[in-house]
Amino acid sequence: MKRKKVVVIGGGTGNFTVLSGLKKYDIDLSAIVSMADDGGSTGILRDEMGVLPPGDVRQCLIALSESSEELRDLFNYRFENGSLGGHNFGNLFLSALEKVAGSFEKAVEEAGRILCCKGRVLPVTYDEVVLQADLGNGKTIKGQVNIDKAGMYKYPLKRLFIEPKAKVNPKAEKAIKEADLIVVAPGSLYSSLLPNLLVEGVPKALQETKAKILYICNLVNKPHETAGYTVCDYVMELEKAGGRKIDYVLYNTKKPRNKVLEKYIKQNELLVGECRASSNYKIIEGDILKDAVSSQKKGDLMNRSFIRHDSEKLTSAIIKILEK
Amino acid sequence: MKRKKVVVIGGGTGNFTVLSGLKKYDIDLSAIVSMADDGGSTGILRDEMGVLPPGDVRQCLIALSESSEELRDLFNYRFENGSLGGHNFGNLFLSALEKVAGSFEKAVEEAGRILCCKGRVLPVTYDEVVLQADLGNGKTIKGQVNIDKAGMYKYPLKRLFIEPKAKVNPKAEKAIKEADLIVVAPGSLYSSLLPNLLVEGVPKALQETKAKILYICNLVNKPHETAGYTVCDYVMELEKAGGRKIDYVLYNTKKPRNKVLEKYIKQNELLVGECRASSNYKIIEGDILKDAVSSQKKGDLMNRSFIRHDSEKLTSAIIKILEK
Repeated sequence: MKRKKVVVIGGGTGNFTVLSGLKKYDIDLSAIVSMADDGGSTGILRDEMGVLPPGDVRQCLIALSESSEELRDLFNYRFENGSLGGHNFGNLFLSALEKVAGSFEKAVEEAGRILCCKGRVLPVTYDEVVLQADLGNGKTIKGQVNIDKAGMYKYPLKRLFIEPKAKVNPKAEKAIKEADLIVVAPGSLYSSLLPNLLVEGVPKALQETKAKILYICNLVNKPHETAGYTVCDYVMELEKAGGRKIDYVLYNTKKPRNKVLEKYIKQNELLVGECRASSNYKIIEGDILKDAVSSQKKGDLMNRSFIRHDSEKLTSAIIKILEK
Repeated sequence: MKRKKVVVIGGGTGNFTVLSGLKKYDIDLSAIVSMADDGGSTGILRDEMGVLPPGDVRQCLIALSESSEELRDLFNYRFENGSLGGHNFGNLFLSALEKVAGSFEKAVEEAGRILCCKGRVLPVTYDEVVLQADLGNGKTIKGQVNIDKAGMYKYPLKRLFIEPKAKVNPKAEKAIKEADLIVVAPGSLYSSLLPNLLVEGVPKALQETKAKILYICNLVNKPHETAGYTVCDYVMELEKAGGRKIDYVLYNTKKPRNKVLEKYIKQNELLVGECRASSNYKIIEGDILKDAVSSQKKGDLMNRSFIRHDSEKLTSAIIKILEK
């Protein structure tokens, strides 16, 4: 039987849970990644070396890697002290390789070989872009990190765009068109997910593909970005940007423990609410929550927060939809 | 037929020419590397991260690598701008891997696998050492880089030592004992070669091995360190530190072009003179000089200077001795 083609679209750490679960199945896997990141180590490298943002790509590569745990730990390693402090080794790897190989595309391919990745990581574009947002007050916020902190501007985001205009990576376009299922990973709506759909050619490919689209809804709202959003609000924004309907939505109904919830409530991070209106997508409800643990395992990206998706539960739900 | 075992001892870039030539032959190859380096990117990493010096090890790994040219270029890549400026990617790789893997030994082994190295790179010791030199005036110079610039102290080196005392890496000791031939690579006598012989256990292993020792004599003297030295002076210093005789010496007799020579003379770097006294080692004279070229090929470590050994001529001379 021909292996099914699954494309995961995302950015930030959201992709990680989905990809590291899906790689265990016998499917043809592609990860399409936002290229709007400009924070931390990635931002410094963009500024100082003029390279494309390595951070989100690195996380996907590690998620798909079937190499030794040591090598994956190395790619996640963060220098602590001195002039290198805060830099991430995997980012340095991709940026140096971009310089040596002559293109980010070659660097990502070579890194995929070294890390024995299952499937491929496809930057959504190879054009250098800056994510921007119009505020209601006529001002514009520039940069993904600043948009991430949108609350400090006390105005809602009015229009999100990237500049200069960017063209879709042809391999990402092809992957979307040939996919059997497209999974929109959980992640920050405005700074990780939508930046993919703002790239020229992505909506068209989404409209042309015969693949169904599955959106894995976020667990909690971000206080300034998506405060008070229900599932429907997320879906609406994605459908508007993609120019087509979302077919399935995975929505967690398992309640986190009270103690954990309280911590989130204190930070104004509330659970994403159920949609009350009638909707034209199929909502799949269930327990896709990771049992809250407080241990911080080295190299486990997902342990920074405590309410998070469970990789196995999530993936088995995805595979069920794929096999429909 | 059993593959012959060759051990190359050195430090700095001298090893590079020898190893990259020898890897093309069907021999069992080990590179024993000085761990006294404390200059440039290596020095910063030692200071800031408390790691062992990666620089010389990196050069040997690249020399022995049979991986793609791209990957070797990556390991040689030097960051140019900003906070990373001057750092060498391969050094960062080894230092981050030392932290992740828990030891420099594991880091070097893993790097050897990734770079598909032929043979093995064996740091002479895993103890952290500082190379030091007593001057005639009662003062002590600390650090390999400072000793390299010994001329600024206007006193000759009286006694070279490392502190604290360091024990030989057991695998390096074993390689020496089981070798068929030991090659002392060309390199800075006091800051690259002798630091290997100052490590506890190395002289003993050299005395116990049945292997012959071949020394590839430097082409030019360093103005403040070995000014006026003949072949015999180099050999004498090595024999004194190793506590045994050198069996063969490869000595270049091909004269470099006048134009190139003049450039060196201006920098007070004169050719190493022939030995006039009778000696108890066999001197093998011949043309082992690389044709002087002025092109600077990216990633070619040897092109920084212009009077240098030719890798192929050198290696074919070594193999002849091995087959005796």
